[in-house]
Amino acid sequence: MRVDGRTYDELRKVEILRDYIKTAEGSVYIMVGDTRVICTATVEERVPPFLRNSGKGWITAEYSMLPRATQTRTIREASKGKLSGRTMEIQRLIGRALRSVVDLKALGERTLWLDCDVIQADGGTRTASITGAFVALVDALVPMVKNGTLPFLPIKDFLAATSVGIIGDNACLDLCYEEDSSAIVDMNVVMTGSGKYVEIQGTGEESPFSPEQFNELLSLSRQGIEQLIRIQKEVLGENAEFVGKTNSALSKKESTAHE
Amino acid sequence: MRVDGRTYDELRKVEILRDYIKTAEGSVYIMVGDTRVICTATVEERVPPFLRNSGKGWITAEYSMLPRATQTRTIREASKGKLSGRTMEIQRLIGRALRSVVDLKALGERTLWLDCDVIQADGGTRTASITGAFVALVDALVPMVKNGTLPFLPIKDFLAATSVGIIGDNACLDLCYEEDSSAIVDMNVVMTGSGKYVEIQGTGEESPFSPEQFNELLSLSRQGIEQLIRIQKEVLGENAEFVGKTNSALSKKESTAHE
Amino acid sequence: MRVDGRTYDELRKVEILRDYIKTAEGSVYIMVGDTRVICTATVEERVPPFLRNSGKGWITAEYSMLPRATQTRTIREASKGKLSGRTMEIQRLIGRALRSVVDLKALGERTLWLDCDVIQADGGTRTASITGAFVALVDALVPMVKNGTLPFLPIKDFLAATSVGIIGDNACLDLCYEEDSSAIVDMNVVMTGSGKYVEIQGTGEESPFSPEQFNELLSLSRQGIEQLIRIQKEVLGENAEFVGKTNSALSKKESTAHE
Amino acid sequence: MRVDGRTYDELRKVEILRDYIKTAEGSVYIMVGDTRVICTATVEERVPPFLRNSGKGWITAEYSMLPRATQTRTIREASKGKLSGRTMEIQRLIGRALRSVVDLKALGERTLWLDCDVIQADGGTRTASITGAFVALVDALVPMVKNGTLPFLPIKDFLAATSVGIIGDNACLDLCYEEDSSAIVDMNVVMTGSGKYVEIQGTGEESPFSPEQFNELLSLSRQGIEQLIRIQKEVLGENAEFVGKTNSALSKKESTAHE
Amino acid sequence: MRVDGRTYDELRKVEILRDYIKTAEGSVYIMVGDTRVICTATVEERVPPFLRNSGKGWITAEYSMLPRATQTRTIREASKGKLSGRTMEIQRLIGRALRSVVDLKALGERTLWLDCDVIQADGGTRTASITGAFVALVDALVPMVKNGTLPFLPIKDFLAATSVGIIGDNACLDLCYEEDSSAIVDMNVVMTGSGKYVEIQGTGEESPFSPEQFNELLSLSRQGIEQLIRIQKEVLGENAEFVGKTNSALSKKESTAHE
Amino acid sequence: MRVDGRTYDELRKVEILRDYIKTAEGSVYIMVGDTRVICTATVEERVPPFLRNSGKGWITAEYSMLPRATQTRTIREASKGKLSGRTMEIQRLIGRALRSVVDLKALGERTLWLDCDVIQADGGTRTASITGAFVALVDALVPMVKNGTLPFLPIKDFLAATSVGIIGDNACLDLCYEEDSSAIVDMNVVMTGSGKYVEIQGTGEESPFSPEQFNELLSLSRQGIEQLIRIQKEVLGENAEFVGKTNSALSKKESTAHE
Repeated sequence: MRVDGRTYDELRKVEILRDYIKTAEGSVYIMVGDTRVICTATVEERVPPFLRNSGKGWITAEYSMLPRATQTRTIREASKGKLSGRTMEIQRLIGRALRSVVDLKALGERTLWLDCDVIQADGGTRTASITGAFVALVDALVPMVKNGTLPFLPIKDFLAATSVGIIGDNACLDLCYEEDSSAIVDMNVVMTGSGKYVEIQGTGEESPFSPEQFNELLSLSRQGIEQLIRIQKEVLGENAEFVGKTNSALSKKESTAHE
Repeated sequence: MRVDGRTYDELRKVEILRDYIKTAEGSVYIMVGDTRVICTATVEERVPPFLRNSGKGWITAEYSMLPRATQTRTIREASKGKLSGRTMEIQRLIGRALRSVVDLKALGERTLWLDCDVIQADGGTRTASITGAFVALVDALVPMVKNGTLPFLPIKDFLAATSVGIIGDNACLDLCYEEDSSAIVDMNVVMTGSGKYVEIQGTGEESPFSPEQFNELLSLSRQGIEQLIRIQKEVLGENAEFVGKTNSALSKKESTAHE
Repeated sequence: MRVDGRTYDELRKVEILRDYIKTAEGSVYIMVGDTRVICTATVEERVPPFLRNSGKGWITAEYSMLPRATQTRTIREASKGKLSGRTMEIQRLIGRALRSVVDLKALGERTLWLDCDVIQADGGTRTASITGAFVALVDALVPMVKNGTLPFLPIKDFLAATSVGIIGDNACLDLCYEEDSSAIVDMNVVMTGSGKYVEIQGTGEESPFSPEQFNELLSLSRQGIEQLIRIQKEVLGENAEFVGKTNSALSKKESTAHE
Repeated sequence: MRVDGRTYDELRKVEILRDYIKTAEGSVYIMVGDTRVICTATVEERVPPFLRNSGKGWITAEYSMLPRATQTRTIREASKGKLSGRTMEIQRLIGRALRSVVDLKALGERTLWLDCDVIQADGGTRTASITGAFVALVDALVPMVKNGTLPFLPIKDFLAATSVGIIGDNACLDLCYEEDSSAIVDMNVVMTGSGKYVEIQGTGEESPFSPEQFNELLSLSRQGIEQLIRIQKEVLGENAEFVGKTNSALSKKESTAHE
Repeated sequence: MRVDGRTYDELRKVEILRDYIKTAEGSVYIMVGDTRVICTATVEERVPPFLRNSGKGWITAEYSMLPRATQTRTIREASKGKLSGRTMEIQRLIGRALRSVVDLKALGERTLWLDCDVIQADGGTRTASITGAFVALVDALVPMVKNGTLPFLPIKDFLAATSVGIIGDNACLDLCYEEDSSAIVDMNVVMTGSGKYVEIQGTGEESPFSPEQFNELLSLSRQGIEQLIRIQKEVLGENAEFVGKTNSALSKKESTAHE
Repeated sequence: MRVDGRTYDELRKVEILRDYIKTAEGSVYIMVGDTRVICTATVEERVPPFLRNSGKGWITAEYSMLPRATQTRTIREASKGKLSGRTMEIQRLIGRALRSVVDLKALGERTLWLDCDVIQADGGTRTASITGAFVALVDALVPMVKNGTLPFLPIKDFLAATSVGIIGDNACLDLCYEEDSSAIVDMNVVMTGSGKYVEIQGTGEESPFSPEQFNELLSLSRQGIEQLIRIQKEVLGENAEFVGKTNSALSKKESTAHE
């Protein structure tokens, strides 16, 4: 039994509220247990200099925590005047993960900004950010398919992420903060709807781990991410149908229905 | 009639949710129309260097906006590596305003951090921050009275703020973003529960204003703040009773009730 | 009687020397008691990005203090690598105040830089900066009218500023540093030659103030600023005549006289 | 066949020169093909604030590239005034990896600084840094065992790292820059002498990967790291014998021999 | 004949006003032709960390130019957030030069801050800063001898500086900005009252120079600095008598006279 | 006799390895005693803004030390986020020195970046950087003459640098770190192949120096630099022949030989 009464292979309660911020193209409030993140997706009609005239788009992510998302107040990075290594690492991960399922050519010369702001932190903020940002991304782009700006949704597959770790002798799914602090091995996994890995980051700072332990963690994460993707599909409703469809049939039909 | 159908002397709908962030000593989610701010209050058991061994406490505020709180995405100050002049000005205002109703001597050598993070911005974010931060502050300190850490609540009076401005020829209360952009005179007022001014900041960049116009705006703000303080009292429930009471009678009674 | 022997409604001695820096388009050395500020006005033939191709000009101000302008040495902001909140607030105020009396359309796509450097500080540095910068601004632009670059002086009205405050029970005009430190209410007022307010910033951090006190301070400031504007007019001599004149009659006459 | 004629499971030529910088406690010049890194280890007799009076030591790494380590000149991070996300990520990885094989308690309140400066870059600079820094670390600490400052070498196991990736359809060991640029999956693995994983970082930004591909890459990296550790042992000569020995027998013997 | 009508070995007009800033321990307004610098000396009763408990004092200088000291406005270093290489070089030079004539041991654990702010720049600002700062330094320390805080003035000798350069074929003394821009060789010399060199910085970026040219410039600078030191002595009046005296006779006499 | 057994007028052992970094246009590893510097020269086909459309090129230098180039570890400037005054001063000196022997007009609109990275520091790092960077510069440009991009080598003369100083009563050539620390006078001299001075920087912070001492140091440096230039010529082999030749005869011959 775990600190919060879950079984080893049990996710925390997940809720995803869509259209949370009326000013953003796509926005989500995701709760994974007591971890809460606001994810917004912004469409900008230009690309960074290295992609100009390439016909390709870009996806970039930014991550931040409110100072009191944590038990003790964390100094704002804006006040310190620089981003911590942890923040940089996380926002690079989120951006890379989402780019892996987006057809940047089909997106065209546009930048998608994914802002993940942690309101309350209880472990797994980076994986919750990825899971939530995916939904915001779909919501930001589907209207562009419906209004004909994009011929089809340039999102090739679903994408979600979770953490796994070894606590004592047990491999556990979806660690809360207390568990994360005492885990001897800690792993973040990002996987697609078709079951392919996008990122596997396993760290055994406290205690190096064996190939067997590694494989056990990996299959545990697999099962968790499959559930998360089922939740994403349910929450996205009809917008979920656009994912992975490159023919414009659907978009035309939707467009008509929309009128 | 105004853009959102209000009369000239009408506040937008105000809602204040308490205990919004479980990790913070005091926390509030305040909605003033479409403006939404998370305000947290943190108690730190030490003071800045200039107050060490003075027996006095301090109150400091920090203010930030999520990048997509606004219609177009705003670059994060953490990414730019410095705070804008606007942010500095606002957080200095919030801190100064709240210090005016706190008995820093009675607070003792503690720092109160008030973090105001704007989730969605539709005008009046600084005044909503002050109004919300006041409630978070009460909630952070009342438990310290109840558990005997403080002999009484070191908050001398209620405090709230609103904006007023001249649009066309009309003095209007509580401007939304669209109104704020077209106002020729813009004023922020912070007032206490006993009707005294703490801050009056009037700016006629577009068009200097007469003493008469100034007085009309001032009385409009007065009436708005009185309503806001009524809402604060209602929302705070029994915690409201501690404000302005320096005898420990109440705190003792409460403390007993608490056991 | 006040610390320096003045009556409550008495300004300190004011002197304004024009053409103080030979390298600048307009420059002034203003003394208000022991407060001394060098104000320069620079004309730059381009505007910030947000105004390009708008046909409108811009006015921006920068403010700084020499490290030993103050009783104890203040660390340079250039050495710390960032501007303090106080500096940002002051330079935003100076810029906003001067923009209020300038016809930015008539100025054309030019930027006016107003640099206010405090040589010696004894209270009221921001208001002395505004009063002095106004004179430097006139001196920088009048030659452009005389040589035909501008059809008329795009300055609509005079502008000056002062501080007022409550010390003990008395409302006092033009506070020196010692008074400023002990004032319970402190207010900066910027007003035009026609008696309209441009900025009113009243702060009662130490002690909130009543509407009556507020009105007493406001009328005291009014009387002080009227005197300051009389001094500006006297100091500016014939250049004063260009202010508020939009017909080119004067400029033609001057231009001829100039040949 | 690969671009440089190697077979898929072949490491590039590795050379490790010890005592490369006479001013440092430990120092190594490591060449992995055309990638060259100078790794130095510095012993500092104090720890960061969060470890004071904990009895434990700390290991921290810094990573940098000379501007012309790369084909086109890279701007110095010192000139830009901040570290890139890539640099932060790499130095966090190096530090974490080395901490995993060090007994921080046995190290005592000391900080080990590992500086990895890339002189010439041809792919795999972060894994070469880890492999080289391990040798520098041993060389910095063995003398402290010999002179009795440390009772035994607080390094529990050997540690090396390599990269693997999928190019076209082939899993390849130890990618050079040209291969790295065209790899669709890229993985860095850090492993100990006893075959346990410390870090596994697999990224399929271009193309998500299957569990089978993942396992093939993992076993390829395993075989490469085993070879690297054999090279480390050979290069370290008798200093290699101290690794993983916690009895002071060896150190005493050495210490005697040293006299 | 030179651009301003001087002969080749002629200094510009020099004026030094003492006690220019009432808030500083020592302060000077120095004019060398159209170059004007405010130099203040601040005594701080502590030393930088590297001198704590050494019994020795320190002297440090800071240099800045008002934005409109120059023909075209220069961006403030405080706004850019960092000091330019030129500023760093100059303030290091000023500090080093003044340390060379101060007995840091006799100064005791104190820091002297010399702030040199250029109000108007017409060439030779760094040498004018040194010449002026020396006077401010004497004025800041003599009162400490008179009141017994220091047993004698810890200034061993006079110190002044000037620039020399080759324009066309002529060696010229004390270059103004126009000359400095066209000089093919440019040299700054700092010398003591007893004719010893403290700094010689000669640069022939445009055209390398011969030993003969070098010696001609050096003797020209010698003659200029001798005049500058005569002016310093005259301006300092009786305070000049303290320089280079280590017996306390003078200070006692003065001290008595002072009572 | 000196600390390392040299006579007073003896250089340390100098070695210059060419083509040290395969990725750079020109690169050198220079050893002057235990001082070791990697110098690379990069050719960039554009100039800084102030030279655009001027037809002239530019040379800029950057200097850095590895953290453990020194006896105790020095904090990285990239980590501190800014360059020290010492670094700025040195890189300005290196750039200025090299520009003095380059015909910037003949170079055309190109920038040459000279990066000097100190691997091990034992005094004289800035002069070793200049001596080494000169060789890297020649090697970067000669191929452009050979392939016809440049009509002739735009390097007018050889250039090298050394330090001299007074230790005790003796003038010494080429100070190592231990000598540099105890020198009372310290001088860096940069000279051309034809014996003209480019930079003379003499500092007597510890003890001002007489004209006689100065001349003795100068002639000592002269003799040292002559030797350094002989070494440069020898090391450069046939590339040395291009220096100072403006007729294209040589380049044509070479170009033919090259085919």
